[in-house]
Amino acid sequence: MPQLIEYADASPAVKAVFDDIMQTRQTDYINNFWKALANDPATLKRTWESIKQIMAPGALDPLTKELIYVAVSTTNQCNYCIASHSAAARKAGMTPEMFGELMAVVGMANETNKLVTGYQVEVDERFKG
Amino acid sequence: MPQLIEYADASPAVKAVFDDIMQTRQTDYINNFWKALANDPATLKRTWESIKQIMAPGALDPLTKELIYVAVSTTNQCNYCIASHSAAARKAGMTPEMFGELMAVVGMANETNKLVTGYQVEVDERFKG
Amino acid sequence: MPQLIEYADASPAVKAVFDDIMQTRQTDYINNFWKALANDPATLKRTWESIKQIMAPGALDPLTKELIYVAVSTTNQCNYCIASHSAAARKAGMTPEMFGELMAVVGMANETNKLVTGYQVEVDERFKG
Amino acid sequence: MPQLIEYADASPAVKAVFDDIMQTRQTDYINNFWKALANDPATLKRTWESIKQIMAPGALDPLTKELIYVAVSTTNQCNYCIASHSAAARKAGMTPEMFGELMAVVGMANETNKLVTGYQVEVDERFKG
Amino acid sequence: MPQLIEYADASPAVKAVFDDIMQTRQTDYINNFWKALANDPATLKRTWESIKQIMAPGALDPLTKELIYVAVSTTNQCNYCIASHSAAARKAGMTPEMFGELMAVVGMANETNKLVTGYQVEVDERFKG
Amino acid sequence: MPQLIEYADASPAVKAVFDDIMQTRQTDYINNFWKALANDPATLKRTWESIKQIMAPGALDPLTKELIYVAVSTTNQCNYCIASHSAAARKAGMTPEMFGELMAVVGMANETNKLVTGYQVEVDERFKG
Repeated sequence: MPQLIEYADASPAVKAVFDDIMQTRQTDYINNFWKALANDPATLKRTWESIKQIMAPGALDPLTKELIYVAVSTTNQCNYCIASHSAAARKAGMTPEMFGELMAVVGMANETNKLVTGYQVEVDERFKG
Repeated sequence: MPQLIEYADASPAVKAVFDDIMQTRQTDYINNFWKALANDPATLKRTWESIKQIMAPGALDPLTKELIYVAVSTTNQCNYCIASHSAAARKAGMTPEMFGELMAVVGMANETNKLVTGYQVEVDERFKG
Repeated sequence: MPQLIEYADASPAVKAVFDDIMQTRQTDYINNFWKALANDPATLKRTWESIKQIMAPGALDPLTKELIYVAVSTTNQCNYCIASHSAAARKAGMTPEMFGELMAVVGMANETNKLVTGYQVEVDERFKG
Repeated sequence: MPQLIEYADASPAVKAVFDDIMQTRQTDYINNFWKALANDPATLKRTWESIKQIMAPGALDPLTKELIYVAVSTTNQCNYCIASHSAAARKAGMTPEMFGELMAVVGMANETNKLVTGYQVEVDERFKG
Repeated sequence: MPQLIEYADASPAVKAVFDDIMQTRQTDYINNFWKALANDPATLKRTWESIKQIMAPGALDPLTKELIYVAVSTTNQCNYCIASHSAAARKAGMTPEMFGELMAVVGMANETNKLVTGYQVEVDERFKG
Repeated sequence: MPQLIEYADASPAVKAVFDDIMQTRQTDYINNFWKALANDPATLKRTWESIKQIMAPGALDPLTKELIYVAVSTTNQCNYCIASHSAAARKAGMTPEMFGELMAVVGMANETNKLVTGYQVEVDERFKG
């Protein structure tokens, strides 16, 4: 598997992305995810710039975006992503009660997604168009 | 595939659930999903009571819960659920800008979930425990 | 998309598989699935021989095997497979009550699979080894 | 991640569910799954009551239900669920031969689900309605 | 659901992306996918620029990249993506024989992915690090 | 979970498959996957013979087939399969640059698969038939 690239060993192109991550997030910590992507500087840069744009406050606030991120990561059963985005969500204000309700909705949505499919339910006319 | 059970043809047990759905949601419309589940009254009752409890306002507001529902349904690629819960989200206040940002987060989360896995990234110590 | 290959237009190698399907299942009908796979005779033959071996009565009876097939197909949200294997399950004895319970288990399993992951539950010692 | 809640530290509402689990299953052991859900007593209670209802003997026997649970959990690649429900299935009578056949069907169903989709096979008229 | 945005009705920002798509691909046709994303110009631009960068010839040739795209889309059961990327793959040189082998590998990989999980196989030491 | 079956402890039927694996791959090493499947000799034999046929050079070369295998395994988040087939891909000539591009395509395909679904994009006429 690819090694993690530490800041000290990074090329200038990778260092520039690491610097932007640390400045944007006001931290001196780089997650393992970015250190792994640093093996492919083009993907590191593209992914960071996409994330930076998408996760910025907009019509949805940062906490809501992190909750959505955890919902997807839980559905995909990605342990790393659940751990890192749960941490980000807590930092953005997620309480234990919110986490509990998030999990309840995610669990139920996964159940009804399959019931709908198994029963082969057709979309109601009023939900179309 | 199971037929849809209309109100007029429903047993008293099914009618009781249909009545509660219409009263709780203040509507006279029953979605195809519930008409399909009505083939199994125990599952209809259990699923409705779970949904009713889970989707009620709590630590998370109804709009946020619907956004999470759409996020899961999109990740699972359940067309019916995307259609019905997008409609519910719009009713709860989702604007086109919110939908665009929701999709952007869902898309990116699905991408990074796989990058994390493909690069076999280990969870950072600080995200544990 | 690949065209469906009808019996009359099939090569001898494909006809031989079609004949075995009809004889084994005691029918004169070939599903669209097999007609599609006939575009790649090696895959047609390998897939049919695998299915024939796997779905034969063994430690599990044919109905149980079809129920499992529907459970997987529902989880994967494969409409074709749900339709064709539900038909096969009904032929093997699945009643509407069994279908209802099957769906209930599949739905709940999909829900708890995600709850387990979201809560990052570790495997109990007694379930290991 | 949420801590596991032990019986001694549980609230009366959680203890009541734990008691019902132990009594229903005639055991003095509570799985980690329930101890994790105990962080959200409403989800603990709702999930347990749903499971208790769904997994009870009905048109399908308990062993068949556990096999279906393992089939879904394997398709979703949920290690915890495979471990815990395989244990339950063995307790309900699953032999190594049954497990082998279960895996064979699950593997093949996952393969043909994708072949059907990749070849874009349309549902046969006779499998509809 | 969001409407498709036609070129004539598009904003200058959207037209600029549409123009780049048509020039890069040397076509006068814009897929429905881009017309749908045009509802969110930021996502349209970001997604197109990412795709343009990723799908350009590099260490892997364009045909191989399209085959990989079809493999993922088949695994995710995304009909639109299978149709559009199969078309792109054929344009890049995919023969019917290649498509057959692609499907065979995708089908088998989906099967063994689940067998590995169901049997809870641990990674061999030699595959680590 | 099933134990791994070592060569010395294997039945003649299992040994025959192990011998063929070692001869075909020109190695004296048997992966844990095959040792696990050896608990069910019929599945071991069928799976090996299918893999042997599918992964042989044909219209697609072995490297391309391994890349496709890794793409599917990453999408399914099967750690074992990513590890073993990445090793096989490297043996067949995959460079770090190829791995980086493979991951980039897989990540983007997973993202656009979900965007297509979330926006409920209909297949263009020209991609049909």
